[in-house]
Amino acid sequence: MLVQGLPGFGNVGRLAARFLIEFTRAEVFAELYAPYFPDYVLVEKDGICRPPRYEFSTAAFGKTQFLILTGDAQPSRDDVVPHYKICDEILKFTEQFGCKFLATLGGVPMSRPAGEVYVAASSPELAVETMEKGAVLYGAGRIVGAAGLMLGLAKERDWKGVCLLGATTGLKADKNAAFNVFKFLMRLFGVEAGLNNKKPSQ
Amino acid sequence: MLVQGLPGFGNVGRLAARFLIEFTRAEVFAELYAPYFPDYVLVEKDGICRPPRYEFSTAAFGKTQFLILTGDAQPSRDDVVPHYKICDEILKFTEQFGCKFLATLGGVPMSRPAGEVYVAASSPELAVETMEKGAVLYGAGRIVGAAGLMLGLAKERDWKGVCLLGATTGLKADKNAAFNVFKFLMRLFGVEAGLNNKKPSQ
Amino acid sequence: MLVQGLPGFGNVGRLAARFLIEFTRAEVFAELYAPYFPDYVLVEKDGICRPPRYEFSTAAFGKTQFLILTGDAQPSRDDVVPHYKICDEILKFTEQFGCKFLATLGGVPMSRPAGEVYVAASSPELAVETMEKGAVLYGAGRIVGAAGLMLGLAKERDWKGVCLLGATTGLKADKNAAFNVFKFLMRLFGVEAGLNNKKPSQ
Amino acid sequence: MLVQGLPGFGNVGRLAARFLIEFTRAEVFAELYAPYFPDYVLVEKDGICRPPRYEFSTAAFGKTQFLILTGDAQPSRDDVVPHYKICDEILKFTEQFGCKFLATLGGVPMSRPAGEVYVAASSPELAVETMEKGAVLYGAGRIVGAAGLMLGLAKERDWKGVCLLGATTGLKADKNAAFNVFKFLMRLFGVEAGLNNKKPSQ
Repeated sequence: MLVQGLPGFGNVGRLAARFLIEFTRAEVFAELYAPYFPDYVLVEKDGICRPPRYEFSTAAFGKTQFLILTGDAQPSRDDVVPHYKICDEILKFTEQFGCKFLATLGGVPMSRPAGEVYVAASSPELAVETMEKGAVLYGAGRIVGAAGLMLGLAKERDWKGVCLLGATTGLKADKNAAFNVFKFLMRLFGVEAGLNNKKPSQ
Repeated sequence: MLVQGLPGFGNVGRLAARFLIEFTRAEVFAELYAPYFPDYVLVEKDGICRPPRYEFSTAAFGKTQFLILTGDAQPSRDDVVPHYKICDEILKFTEQFGCKFLATLGGVPMSRPAGEVYVAASSPELAVETMEKGAVLYGAGRIVGAAGLMLGLAKERDWKGVCLLGATTGLKADKNAAFNVFKFLMRLFGVEAGLNNKKPSQ
Repeated sequence: MLVQGLPGFGNVGRLAARFLIEFTRAEVFAELYAPYFPDYVLVEKDGICRPPRYEFSTAAFGKTQFLILTGDAQPSRDDVVPHYKICDEILKFTEQFGCKFLATLGGVPMSRPAGEVYVAASSPELAVETMEKGAVLYGAGRIVGAAGLMLGLAKERDWKGVCLLGATTGLKADKNAAFNVFKFLMRLFGVEAGLNNKKPSQ
Repeated sequence: MLVQGLPGFGNVGRLAARFLIEFTRAEVFAELYAPYFPDYVLVEKDGICRPPRYEFSTAAFGKTQFLILTGDAQPSRDDVVPHYKICDEILKFTEQFGCKFLATLGGVPMSRPAGEVYVAASSPELAVETMEKGAVLYGAGRIVGAAGLMLGLAKERDWKGVCLLGATTGLKADKNAAFNVFKFLMRLFGVEAGLNNKKPSQ
């Protein structure tokens, strides 16, 4: 399955993907550079620079093979056509590895977040199944950006998938919301052992 | 004939198209997804998500075969080139089914709307004909968005057509204005029976 | 020669082109529709709609054969790439008719306009020649939009040309500034007879 | 090696490239016009106009062959895809001349600039080497625009390179910051003779 967590509200998606990568000790196997990312370079602490990119990591955990997509930035909100294109390219790319299930991770702004994880899904069965594991149904509305768009495009390609959104004020990077999303993702795919011993490092 | 009603001022065009679909019991026969729509997904009440799209429905009513185009969103006002492209693609697509007449439905903002329906047309004859049935001439000015653009492009393809605009404050979804536009469309194409018994449900 | 006058500051360019069309009794021989224009339709007084377009008119006057380009709107300031493309297409199109000289007409905002016409040119000789006929040199600076861009692109194609800018407050459509530009254009090409009898109609 | 200095914060990059061109007596050998530049023309003091462009100059100095890229304007911040494209085209173009090393010059806004030059690099070795010659490490962060992007893209093409950023308030064209960057560039490539006798002319 493909798990996607990118920068967004409270940086929840990206941080949750980071937790998954660390927990599963996933290794980077592909990098994606594209003119749809911003036209700056990122400079690391040692002064080394590189363009923004998406990274694909992979790990086997329990019975599940994870492809994990994370990255530095989403395409600009003005570049809608390129955003469709890059999401679709990624689905095509990961289909080669047998992916037909997508979990997108993100944050949803709430005035008083209480640790809950919301779900939207590609089918009623999946929505119900995910709610039975403790998620709250994400009622009528929109999911903006890559977390929503990629799931929508995956559905059109006959994938199945869920979008898991951690409640967050969205005002700053929210490690707790991200950890909740990560834990829920693990619960959903039957891997719970040892998680209680891990806490987000500040 | 092709009838188009998309989101816009007071959501009049889309609501009028909905009335037509319900009244004629039209059935969806095609969906259009495109990277020109916004990069979010819509989530229904049951938590199921999908990308924004246009829908084509069809129904025969009286002597008229209707193709009805409605949808979730217009392309962004910044994406003018894609907007031209998608409108032209739709005209090409519907020409295959013999369409050479277009009615676009929309709203026009008025400070004191009084139920009137405005008309702009592809030819003087059509404008006069439509006014004789009770529409008000839409004087010199502009019609922005898909309601205007698609009619303009249709004219360049030698279609005939009218744009029917319901007067609305435009501040909120305006079912009454939409119903007026729907009723006028029916009157224009000789189908009036039973309409007086229908009122917009709130 | 190609004369271009499009909407801009004080609408000077377009109005000046209109004066030229009326004075020379030029006739439209080509229309240009493009997805680079705005996505609305223009509705005339009789309720007839059409997309925005550029129009090419032609007239012989004295020894000069004029191709006159005017239109409803310039491409959006955000659509720079399409603007380059359309200007270049027009140069290619008019080269077929032997055009190698371009005069672009426009307005230049001044706090106290006094009827003067400014000039920028493709070569020092042309700048001097035009100043000798009464134009003021347009010093160091920029000329934004089609009046500047098309002349710049023409120069790269080895055309010669001038940009004539009527001083205007730019706050409203300025017929006087446009008439000054038109008169100067006529003087530049040796056609002065009868002009004093014409005044801009309000 | 390719040296790039384009308009940006305090115009430092462009001014530094100008110093290099004057000092090495480099000659223009190529001009680049593209629809990705703004849609205006620049008018010189003599009234002559031309579109914005990039210029490539070349000079041999000491053991170093310089290709120097400067220009009138960067692509609009909204045109990210074209910006990637043009930077990559330039790298391809200059690779033909054997370039595999890039120095980009720019400014970095500081509240109290004290003549320092910051460095980011394509590799840790280069960063250290440059710091040993007196540059300050540009810590974690971003470098926006062409100075950053072109270095990032060069790195993906297996070039080596540095970005040298002169501290500047960025409020106006900063010749001193530019001269510092220029001097540092000369020191970096072993050419220091005679520089102390030159000062920026106001």
